[in-house]
Amino acid sequence: MKKIINNPNDVVKDMLKGMELAHKELKYTPELEVISKNEKCEKVGLVSGGGSGHEPAHAGYVGYGMLDAAVCGNVFASPSPDRILKGIEEADTGKGVLLIVKNYSGDIMNFEMAKDLCELDEDMIDMVIVRDDVAMEDSDFSTGRRGISGTVFVHKIAGAMSQRGGSLVEVKRIAQKTIDNVRSMGMSMSSCIIPAVGKAGFEIEENEIEVGMGIHGEAGIYKKPLMSAKELAKELVEKITDDLDYTNSDVALMINGLGATPLMELYIMSKEVIELLESKNIHPYKVLVGNFMTALEMAGCSVSILKLDDELKGLLDDKCNTPAMKN
Amino acid sequence: MKKIINNPNDVVKDMLKGMELAHKELKYTPELEVISKNEKCEKVGLVSGGGSGHEPAHAGYVGYGMLDAAVCGNVFASPSPDRILKGIEEADTGKGVLLIVKNYSGDIMNFEMAKDLCELDEDMIDMVIVRDDVAMEDSDFSTGRRGISGTVFVHKIAGAMSQRGGSLVEVKRIAQKTIDNVRSMGMSMSSCIIPAVGKAGFEIEENEIEVGMGIHGEAGIYKKPLMSAKELAKELVEKITDDLDYTNSDVALMINGLGATPLMELYIMSKEVIELLESKNIHPYKVLVGNFMTALEMAGCSVSILKLDDELKGLLDDKCNTPAMKN
Repeated sequence: MKKIINNPNDVVKDMLKGMELAHKELKYTPELEVISKNEKCEKVGLVSGGGSGHEPAHAGYVGYGMLDAAVCGNVFASPSPDRILKGIEEADTGKGVLLIVKNYSGDIMNFEMAKDLCELDEDMIDMVIVRDDVAMEDSDFSTGRRGISGTVFVHKIAGAMSQRGGSLVEVKRIAQKTIDNVRSMGMSMSSCIIPAVGKAGFEIEENEIEVGMGIHGEAGIYKKPLMSAKELAKELVEKITDDLDYTNSDVALMINGLGATPLMELYIMSKEVIELLESKNIHPYKVLVGNFMTALEMAGCSVSILKLDDELKGLLDDKCNTPAMKN
Repeated sequence: MKKIINNPNDVVKDMLKGMELAHKELKYTPELEVISKNEKCEKVGLVSGGGSGHEPAHAGYVGYGMLDAAVCGNVFASPSPDRILKGIEEADTGKGVLLIVKNYSGDIMNFEMAKDLCELDEDMIDMVIVRDDVAMEDSDFSTGRRGISGTVFVHKIAGAMSQRGGSLVEVKRIAQKTIDNVRSMGMSMSSCIIPAVGKAGFEIEENEIEVGMGIHGEAGIYKKPLMSAKELAKELVEKITDDLDYTNSDVALMINGLGATPLMELYIMSKEVIELLESKNIHPYKVLVGNFMTALEMAGCSVSILKLDDELKGLLDDKCNTPAMKN
């Protein structure tokens, strides 16, 4: 295992301390592994989180116009309810708190528990669940579709609505609208190593890719021989466009690297995906290319497509200022 | 070779087409492999470039407040003078053009040639050479120190001065001031594969790192056993601080990933570097963490430290809006 780390058991706390030192507008609560904002303004608080290893998700999206707190579990492990309670406390300014949770059974259980345990009135705390991964209807770790890179669009758009002063009801409505209109699909070309485990979670042949791979190294839907970027774009995009009718729509497109894929390859993938979408009369209005939700040093990518209307476009274009996304 | 590509010989043009499609404010000139801005404003034009494979450098820095054109060679190969001439043409709005070149013999030769061949008056075109890599005094590919990740600070600061309306003399002065005050040092943990070659350029043992490795896979200064992030921070930073006295200074710090290093590891490295700098009475004023100048899918990182005064701070803080850097 070749990593830039100290003790493999300390990777999450060392990383979060590094984030706090690098970004003075962020505050790190040690032991509870929460990243929040140093300066608060009165607004609906947005909390997300989950296992670590998906950086910049979610701590990199804490800041103006996106999240108020990110709760970090150990690598690929759900954060415990006490950590989530601390996240809620940090995000609460009296206007209500929305939890944005990716659909994994452990996360749902722990976020639900924290929601029930926290001291906020029932109408001051709510939750949405992101299920954007069209690869499979159920997985080993989720009932229903998994939440993956499309979650970042939910952070951006709900964050904008909250920053505009929307109520908890309004912010939840727009978060759910984003969830209803986003779909994602990924594939991987290599495994990744959880630091505390020290060896790769699975093997993959030199000429093989795993389509529909999850962001924790969980199995995909099938393996296929390595293919060209053009074929890969078709493989991923058509699973998405078969699931939701995007025809004649403007969309936000994310070409997301899983950690070890060079930006050169992500832009080649962008070319193929955009040309394919245009041929289907689907028009990218905004395109994000980079590492937005990763799986440690996994090579591969996911594609997320969000169907836009004027309301979503406006919120997508609103100013945001976080370590991992600025507008 | 497992990459998201089509024909290995087309990676640069496919990538640049992808950039143009993803970022509507950018224009791609095919065959000459230049990325420039669609909308021009009258100002000193900034042109940079070099071999491809270092993305987002340099095309990702074309936009408001940074570069006006990036000239792209083949992977790890200098762009030819005709390409550079096109870059100059795209960047020229009558106020003069500055070429920002990393110190590699091929780049220097070709940029010099284009500078001599172009139709601008002698006082309307100038050039600066970045030599920030303290690893070695000369290399196989350069006379004098190589230019690496510190170059991005030159793009940012000269870009801000140009955007403010500074003259060519002023923009060159501040670019040179940035060069004089920035030092970098890197290390790698893995090799990378040039697509058209198809196999790794060198071998590195499982428990070994190469200190002082260049961004084209050229040899470093020595190999060492894998060490902790804390030890690695000391290894890289002290080579830099031995070279320039930063004591009691505010600095801009860049923790740059070489392509395949997870953000988790870069933030762990940030923690160690910032704590070490503070212990030496050197104060990070601004910290950039991410992939800014890469070497395809190489694992590893470089550290760049820029000594700041009030003038440089102001320019660093100015607004910029490019695909890879926003302020």
